[in-house]
Parts: sequence; structure tokens; C-alpha cells
Amino acid sequence: MSAPPDIAVRPDSVAILGFHDGNAGQVETWFESVTGLHLACFVHPEAEPPNVDAAVENRRRVSQRTNFPPRDAFKGRPLLSAVDWPERLLALGIRRVVPLLSNNRERLRAIVAAQAHGLELVSAIHPSVLILSGAVIQPGVWINAGSIIGYNAELAAGVLINTGVQIDHHNVLERCCQVDPGVVTAGNVTLRECAHVHTGATLINRMEVGADAIVGAGAVVIRPVPPRCTVVGVPARVIKERPAA
Amino acid sequence: MSAPPDIAVRPDSVAILGFHDGNAGQVETWFESVTGLHLACFVHPEAEPPNVDAAVENRRRVSQRTNFPPRDAFKGRPLLSAVDWPERLLALGIRRVVPLLSNNRERLRAIVAAQAHGLELVSAIHPSVLILSGAVIQPGVWINAGSIIGYNAELAAGVLINTGVQIDHHNVLERCCQVDPGVVTAGNVTLRECAHVHTGATLINRMEVGADAIVGAGAVVIRPVPPRCTVVGVPARVIKERPAA
Amino acid sequence: MSAPPDIAVRPDSVAILGFHDGNAGQVETWFESVTGLHLACFVHPEAEPPNVDAAVENRRRVSQRTNFPPRDAFKGRPLLSAVDWPERLLALGIRRVVPLLSNNRERLRAIVAAQAHGLELVSAIHPSVLILSGAVIQPGVWINAGSIIGYNAELAAGVLINTGVQIDHHNVLERCCQVDPGVVTAGNVTLRECAHVHTGATLINRMEVGADAIVGAGAVVIRPVPPRCTVVGVPARVIKERPAA
Repeated sequence: MSAPPDIAVRPDSVAILGFHDGNAGQVETWFESVTGLHLACFVHPEAEPPNVDAAVENRRRVSQRTNFPPRDAFKGRPLLSAVDWPERLLALGIRRVVPLLSNNRERLRAIVAAQAHGLELVSAIHPSVLILSGAVIQPGVWINAGSIIGYNAELAAGVLINTGVQIDHHNVLERCCQVDPGVVTAGNVTLRECAHVHTGATLINRMEVGADAIVGAGAVVIRPVPPRCTVVGVPARVIKERPAA
Repeated sequence: MSAPPDIAVRPDSVAILGFHDGNAGQVETWFESVTGLHLACFVHPEAEPPNVDAAVENRRRVSQRTNFPPRDAFKGRPLLSAVDWPERLLALGIRRVVPLLSNNRERLRAIVAAQAHGLELVSAIHPSVLILSGAVIQPGVWINAGSIIGYNAELAAGVLINTGVQIDHHNVLERCCQVDPGVVTAGNVTLRECAHVHTGATLINRMEVGADAIVGAGAVVIRPVPPRCTVVGVPARVIKERPAA
Repeated sequence: MSAPPDIAVRPDSVAILGFHDGNAGQVETWFESVTGLHLACFVHPEAEPPNVDAAVENRRRVSQRTNFPPRDAFKGRPLLSAVDWPERLLALGIRRVVPLLSNNRERLRAIVAAQAHGLELVSAIHPSVLILSGAVIQPGVWINAGSIIGYNAELAAGVLINTGVQIDHHNVLERCCQVDPGVVTAGNVTLRECAHVHTGATLINRMEVGADAIVGAGAVVIRPVPPRCTVVGVPARVIKERPAA
């Protein structure tokens, strides 16, 4: 294991789990001003620091404005790589985490570990988000700019809601499901644990997307989606089913 | 006919026609603070009070946060069930109604009845709605959170615009058409009387959707939709035509 | 060439290139209050004034609220028709232009001409637009109401972003590409010069749309779009390729 980076800790310090520029990176730009908390470090839940060659990554991209971690830092803040990160954070005096790992199951494991260690889950909700009356949002979610959380909707810990998503009235989003930009759900939709709905998909009212299921980009869901299935198209049809873990 | 509930009336009292939680229920949470008017009661335009078994309804739902009426009340406010509700409201001293009945033709009949009795139609427009310059909105519409009403667009009485809808420039929406969450129209689109556009549909510029026509969820309309027809798919094609009434 | 209209000029005067009511017309309603600049005139980059018969145009439309130019005026402001409009504007003392011509290549030619003559490009960005941190927007773009420009996105001069568009993180939009209402892009999307994405299309992450390519309304782009090709459908497929100019 590499030497840990120096991490300055305050009573209001928070660690972000994850270091991808598309979520953790953009949250970093507004998290402190929106929450009033101190962002002490990012966390990579592996023994070894990430090994990313920014030059190689940038050759694959048109944008040259993506941030990559030089092993023990991300966007100028410390990046802690450790399998036993809950103990390490507590030892440092950091008691709060924002779970932004991109993989749904990995994020769920991290949440379970955080809660087992008494770490507090903290949300990152962009100030432009509209939260309608009666919505119940558990701590530990990300909701990005321009999204709308409908009347009496329920979001569990670890839910990731990307840019400009519409989650309508009486939706139930279970732990660690993920919703990509521009998705629109009608009323009474349920996303089970770790379901993932991709960019621009549409779900009509009362639809249920099973645990670990995947709704493809632009799909229009008019029938329930079974667990672990992938659906695509208009109307959405099953093209793949993964075995139970 | 059952005994009417007690209804406290003030000079600024309004009745909401309809009692479904997805529209009337969520409007109830912000109507008074947004309009400054008093919400005196809901109205069910039938002789008998609705007979809803909340326990049965909730067994069909994942969310347990839906409100149902116990006969003569909804969300703690009186629910008046009467065929002659215009006379009943006037006798009570209520002169304003917000038409939120979900069925388009039923809502149109209610609007005609309200106007024949000199009842004033009142709109429920969420404060987050963007209304661009030149838009003309008749009284008696619902526009839910996050929607955009474009430059020089026209909305007639009884129009229901759900969450996060985009109605673009020079659109004409005739009486009692209904637009579900996340629908996007381009410029110069016309929705004729009682047309219904479902969740996430897209309409290109200059499209006309005929009276009582239905555009399915996620449909992409690139040809005019004849009256009373149902279209679905990408591009949208007619799958059904209902006979003229 | 017809006699030029009288144009009152101030030190902060701006000319809008174009006169269509769907973009130039609606920008006219808020441009001055948002930018604090003076809108001196519209420009038609042709020798002859436009010859539009408003009565004929209105017979083709349901909305009767569209503005058309009576030769040398649009919305009560002067409309200058001239091929040598850069020289004419400079002679009048107007040094700033907002490029709103609808045709992408025509708009690009106008931008090149403006820059060659030392005219300053000015943007028209509606105050409701959300611009997230790190976004870089060159002067000379239009962004209409309700749109979101993502974290670290880049927009070049001449880009037109219509109503309620979501351009997500690390997108790169080259000069004079155009995005119609309700389009949603995921992260790391590139739109090359003069690409045009139509209403309600969805682009998944890392997609590239080639120069002068067209993405049809409601298309779901899951493969790169070659230059000058037109793609439609879900998933989007090529239906046409235009020859290189």
C-alpha cells in the first residue's frame, strides 16, 4: 500500500467516495458552497492508487478539460486509496462521506460499509434542483443540476440522479439506482436496488424496473422490466438477462 | 345523494374540480401560497361520493404515499360530490373553480358548465414555470413544475401541462388538451381540443394533433395526427382510430 | 438595392443577423434588458429586402402571432438588407453583431465576415439558462430559455442552442452547430462544425456528430455520425449522405 496523502481535517470534513470527473469532479466545484461543509479528500476503495495516464486518456477525447488523478490527488485535493477506508477516515477524524462511486453495486457495498462503521452519509444536491412537496430524500444521494424530484417521491441512499432528470410523483427509487441525464418518468414508477436508467429514456406511469436491470438510452418503457435484464428500443424489449449474482 | 360535507367559505374561496393525487393532490400543496386564494373544497361531479378503498389501492402500489378520498374529504379538505355542483358552489358562495378532472372530455363539459353558470375559471401555475414573452394563457389551466411555455404560444382554458413539459414558440393548445411529463414540442405545433400527448413524446415543428387524438409515450411525431387517432412509435404511426362521438 | 432604412445608433448598439420570429424575434423581446445593450437593427445579408407576404404566411399557420418583416423593418425595428452589411454597419457606427441566421453555413460565413471586418460577436443567453462550472462559451452564441450547459463544456461562436436543451459535461460544440429544443446529450459528446441536432434527440456519452451532419428529431445516437450524413431512428442509422461541398 502506498503512503497516504496528507489530509487536512476539520470538524465539518467530508470525503467523496469516487474520483470520476463526470460526477465527483463536478460535485467538487459546488459542494462546499452549497453544503457549507469541508471537502477533505476523495476516496478510491482499492489498495493501490488509480493508475491513469492523463496524456493517454486525453488522446482519446476531444475535450481536453477532463481532470484525472495523479495517484494521490484529484483536482488538487488528496485522494486516499485504501480497502479499509472507513477505518482510515475515522482515524483521520472524518465522519461523513458522499457516495459517488459510478458502479451501483460497488457504491452499495461502500454505503453498507460506511453505515457499519458509523459514518454519516451526506447528499450532494445542486441548488437548481426542484424538490416538490412531500418528496422524501434519504441522506447520501447525488442530484445534479436542473433535475426535478416529484411530489411524494422517495429516494433512498446511494441514488445518483444526473443532469436534468425528471422523477415524477410517487416514484420510489431504491438504494443505489442510477438515472442518467434527461430521463423522464411518469407517476408511480419504481426503480429497484441498483437499477440503471440510461440517457433520455422514458418510463410511463406505474412501471417497475427490477434490481440491477438496465434501461438503454432513449428506451421507452411501457412494460415492467425484470431484475437483471437489459431493455432497449421503442417500445423497450429485453435483449439480455444477466444471471443472479 | 349523500349529505354534503361542511365547507367553510371565504370571499376568495376556490374549488378544485377533481381529486386525483397526481394532479389535484399535488396542486393542493402549493395552490394557496402561490395564488393567495383559499382552497375551500374539491369537487367530484357525480351524484355519489367516490368509493375508493385506500387499503386495496395501496396494495397495488409500491409507494404508500398516495392520498385517497374517504368519501367526503380529500387531503383533509371537504370533497363535494354532486351533479349540480355549479349551483351548489354558487349557493355556498364559491365563485371560482380550477378544472383538474383527468378525462379531457369530462373536463371540457365541466368548463362549459362552469362558464354557463358564471363561475370564474382559475389557473394553477407552479412558480417554477417559465412563461416566455408574448405567451397568452387563458384562465383555467394547470401548468406543473419545470415546464416552459414558449414565445407567443397560446393556451386555452382546461389545458393540463404536466411536469417539465416544453411547449415552444407559436404553439396553439386548444381547450382541454393534456400534455404529460417531459413532452417536447418544436415551434408552430397545434394541439386541437382534447388531444392528449403522453410522457416523453416529441413533436417537430408545424405538427398538428387533431381533436381527441392520442400521442403515445415516447412517440416522435413527424406527420400530422388526424382527429381521434392514436399514434405510437418512432416515427409515430396510426395504430387506432376511434369513431366520432 | 433598396434605400436603407433609418437606423438610430448609440455607442452600445448591436445588430442581429437574421429576422426569423422563432429565434431573432424572440431574442428581440429580452435582448436589451438582459445584455444592457441597444438593439439597433436586424440584418438580412442579401441585396434585396425579404419579400414576405404576411397574409399568405398566416394562412398556412394556426397561430396568428408570428411576426414577418415588411421589407425594411421587423418587429418595429429597422431591417438592413445588404450583401456588404459589415461595411454598412461599421459606416453606421455599429460594431457588434449577434449571429442568428438559421442556416448553419450561412451563419458561419457571416461570422467569418464579421470577424474579418473587426466586428465584435455578442451572445444572447436567456437569464434562465444554467451554466455549470468550468463551461467555456465563446462570444456569439444563442442559448434559449431553460437550457443547461454542463461542467467544462465548450461552445464555439455561432452555436445555436434552442429551448430546454441539455449539453452535458465535457461536450465540445464547434462553430455554428445547432441544437433544437429538448435535445439531451450525455458526457463527452462532440458536435463538429455546422452539425444540426433536431428536436428531442438523445446522444449517449462520447458520441461525435460530424461536420454538417444532421441528427433527426427523436433519434437516439449510439454510434458516431459521419460528416454530412443524416441519421434518424432508435437507434439512429444513416439514411442519407450529402457530398462534400
